[in-house]
Amino acid sequence: MTTKELLSIKINEPDNEVFNLSRSRWDSLAKPIDGLGKFEEIISSIAAIQGKVCPDITRKAMIIMCADNGVYEEGVSQTSQSVTRDVAELMGDGKSSVGIMAKDYSVDFFVYDVGINCEVTPEGVIDAKIRKGTVNFCKGPAMELSECLAAIQIGIDAVKKCSDEGYGLIATGEMGIGNTTTSTAILCALLGLDPADYVGRGAGLSDDGLKCKIRAIEEGLRKHVNSAENAPCAFGGTDIAEPLYPEENTSGNSDKSGLEKVIKKESIGSIEKLSTITNATISKEQLSTKTNTTISREQVLEILKDLGGLDIAGLVGIFIGGAMYRIPVVIDGLISATAALLADRIIPGCRRYMIPSHMGREKAMEIIMKELDLEPVICADLALGEGTGALLLLPMLDMVMSLYLAGTTFGDTEIEKYERFC
Amino acid sequence: MTTKELLSIKINEPDNEVFNLSRSRWDSLAKPIDGLGKFEEIISSIAAIQGKVCPDITRKAMIIMCADNGVYEEGVSQTSQSVTRDVAELMGDGKSSVGIMAKDYSVDFFVYDVGINCEVTPEGVIDAKIRKGTVNFCKGPAMELSECLAAIQIGIDAVKKCSDEGYGLIATGEMGIGNTTTSTAILCALLGLDPADYVGRGAGLSDDGLKCKIRAIEEGLRKHVNSAENAPCAFGGTDIAEPLYPEENTSGNSDKSGLEKVIKKESIGSIEKLSTITNATISKEQLSTKTNTTISREQVLEILKDLGGLDIAGLVGIFIGGAMYRIPVVIDGLISATAALLADRIIPGCRRYMIPSHMGREKAMEIIMKELDLEPVICADLALGEGTGALLLLPMLDMVMSLYLAGTTFGDTEIEKYERFC
Repeated sequence: MTTKELLSIKINEPDNEVFNLSRSRWDSLAKPIDGLGKFEEIISSIAAIQGKVCPDITRKAMIIMCADNGVYEEGVSQTSQSVTRDVAELMGDGKSSVGIMAKDYSVDFFVYDVGINCEVTPEGVIDAKIRKGTVNFCKGPAMELSECLAAIQIGIDAVKKCSDEGYGLIATGEMGIGNTTTSTAILCALLGLDPADYVGRGAGLSDDGLKCKIRAIEEGLRKHVNSAENAPCAFGGTDIAEPLYPEENTSGNSDKSGLEKVIKKESIGSIEKLSTITNATISKEQLSTKTNTTISREQVLEILKDLGGLDIAGLVGIFIGGAMYRIPVVIDGLISATAALLADRIIPGCRRYMIPSHMGREKAMEIIMKELDLEPVICADLALGEGTGALLLLPMLDMVMSLYLAGTTFGDTEIEKYERFC
Repeated sequence: MTTKELLSIKINEPDNEVFNLSRSRWDSLAKPIDGLGKFEEIISSIAAIQGKVCPDITRKAMIIMCADNGVYEEGVSQTSQSVTRDVAELMGDGKSSVGIMAKDYSVDFFVYDVGINCEVTPEGVIDAKIRKGTVNFCKGPAMELSECLAAIQIGIDAVKKCSDEGYGLIATGEMGIGNTTTSTAILCALLGLDPADYVGRGAGLSDDGLKCKIRAIEEGLRKHVNSAENAPCAFGGTDIAEPLYPEENTSGNSDKSGLEKVIKKESIGSIEKLSTITNATISKEQLSTKTNTTISREQVLEILKDLGGLDIAGLVGIFIGGAMYRIPVVIDGLISATAALLADRIIPGCRRYMIPSHMGREKAMEIIMKELDLEPVICADLALGEGTGALLLLPMLDMVMSLYLAGTTFGDTEIEKYERFC
C-alpha cells in the first residue's frame, strides 16, 4: 500500500437512520428511558455501524498486535525487551493475562507478530513480522514509511478476514515493551502536549525511569517533530490548513506532498518553546482546533513512522479496517487509543466505528477520549494492556444486548410507557 | 427484632492479613503491578471478607427487594404505582430487565415482596410482605419502627439463607415506584443536604414532576426531621456525640434512648435554615464529620422508618447481613447505595463488606460513595434500577478472578518480576 492508496480510502458514515430506529427500540422497552445510559448509545452505535437495527455481536474477535520498540534502549521500561516475546508466547498459548481472563468467555484471539525482536515468531502467534523491532527514535526514524504502511495494511487485512468469517465485533490489544513511550511521544507530537505533563509510569516505572522516559520523548520530538524537515504546523506558525476530509483533498496526493508544502513554509522553534506554548497559552480546545486544521494527514503518518511502534501502526489499520468493513472496534488503553486517534486523523470519521471501553490510568487517556468525543464506561485505573480493558467490556455488552434484543416491550405488558421529558 | 437487638449486632473487620496476602499474590502474577487497578483491590477485599486468600465467588445470588411507597401520591413518579407489582411479576418470571440481561449468566435471583401494594404476591416472588406499601411520608411516618425492624430482619435472614447455601457473593437490586424520592429524602436527612440540589429525575421525571418531588421531600423533612420531636443533630446545634461503634455504646440501648437525649436538648429551626447551612457554610467534609459524630444510630433508624421504604429497609438488612455472615454485597444504584450508607451508620464498619458497582446518574451517588469511601468501576449514567448495574459488574469480577486464581506467576515463566516503585 502506498500513502496515496491509504489516503484514498473512502469510508461511509454509520447509518444514522438505523441509529435513530435503534434509539426508538430502546425507548419501547419496559424500562425507564435511557435507563442503561451510555450502554444504550453503544448498542445503537453498533446497530448503525452494522446497518442493522438488530445487530449481531455474537462472534467476537480480539486482535492483538505485538512488536518491539527501539526506544527501549533509553531505559524507558523497568523490564527487559525479551518480555515482549515471552508474553506473546504466553498469548499464543492462551496463558497471558488476557487469555486467562477470557478462559470462560467466548472470544477468538488473533495475535500478530508485526515486529517482535526475535528470530522465530512464537507458536500460536501469526507471523506478520515486518522487522525485528523499530529503530530507537532518539537516533533515527522508528521505521521506514513503507514499513509503517505495511503494518497498517496488516491491520486492515486482519479486519477483512474477521469480516469474511462473520465476526460482529473486534476488540483490540497489544504487547510491546516501551509502547507507552511511543504512544505518548506520538500524542505529544500530534496534540502539541508537553511530555512532562503527560508521561505516565506505564507498567510501573521508577522515578528515574520516568525521567528517562520524558527525556527520550523530548529527544524524539526534538529530532523528528521539531526539526525543520518535517514539523507539523501545531508547533510552528504556518497557516496552511490541510484538508480534513478525504474528499476535500484536491492535492496530487503524492507521498509527502502535504509535508513538502509545510517544509518550505517555515522552520520551527525549540522544544522549550513548544512546552511553553502548550502549557501556558493554548487551551485544550484551541489546541484541538489548531491541530485538526493544521496537521495534514501525511504529517500524521509521518509522526507515526518517526515515533511509533509497529504495534501502533497495526492497530491503526484495525481501526481503519473497522470503518471500511463496518465492524465496531473496541478501544483498549493508551496504546490502542493512540492508534484510534491516529486512525481518525488519517481517515477522518473512523471514530464513529470505535467503541470506548475504559479510561485507563495513563494521564493522556482523558485527552484522547475528548479528541475522539468518546466516553468509556469502565473507570478502574487499569494499566495492564494486552486488551484486558477491552475484554472486560464484552460481557457487559452481551448483557445489554440481551435486553435490547429480547427485552419486554411496553406493548407486551400492562405497564404504561415512560415518556421522554428530557 | 428490637432496636436493642439490632444495635447489639457485632461484626468483625474483614481479615487484614488475608488482604495483604492477597495483594502479594496479585504482585506475584506476570503482569504490571496494579495492572488491574481498582479490580485488584475489589478481589483482595473479597478475599479479606471471606477470610481466604483464594475466595470463592462461583455461586452468586441477586436479592431484589420490592415495595411500594406512599409518597407516590405526591406525584413524584411518571408511572402509576401498579408498575411495582407488574415489574415484580416479570421479575418472578425472569422477564424483567435484570432477568433478561442475566439470561445467559449464572446468577440466582431471590425476589422479595416486602411491601408491594397488592393483595397477592406475584408468582416466583418470595412473600415477605410487611404491609401493602408505606404511608405517604408527607402525612405521617412511612412505617412503624417494628415494621422497619422486620424489613431489616428479612434482609439479614435472606443473607443467612444464602450463606447456608454456599453463595460467595450477593448483588442487590430493588423495585418500587417512588424509591428515588424516599432515598433522596433519607440522604437529605442523614447528610443535611438541600433536596433542590440533589433530587434527580429518577426514571425520567418531567420538570413539573421534579418540582413535586422536591416539594414532597421538603415536606417530609419538615414533618419528620425538622420537627422538635426527632431532629437529628446535624440540623441543630446540640453537641451530644453518640457512640460511633457498637462496643463503645454504653448507654442502656432502650428503644429511642439516643433520640430522647437529643429531644430534650434543643428544638430546631426551619427547613430554610437547614438549606442555608448546608449550602453555604458547611463544607462536605465538615458535614460528614458532623453527621458522623452527631446523629445517633437510633436516629438513623428513625430517619429510615419516617422517610424510607420497606425496600430500602430490606436492603439495609442485606448489607448488615453481609457483614455478619462475611459475604461481599454488591451495591447497585441510588436506592441500594442509600441502604448501604444507612447500614454503615447503623452498624459501623459494614462498608468494609460492600463492593461498589456503578456511579449511576442520580446526583447523590457521588456523595454516598465518598461517605462510604468506595469507588465504583462502572461510569455509564445508569438509571434503570432492579440491580442491573450490580449485575453488569459480575462477569467482570469473574474475569478478574480467573486471572487472580489461575494467572501465570513470575515463578512460572522466564519473565522478570516487576518491582513496586510507587
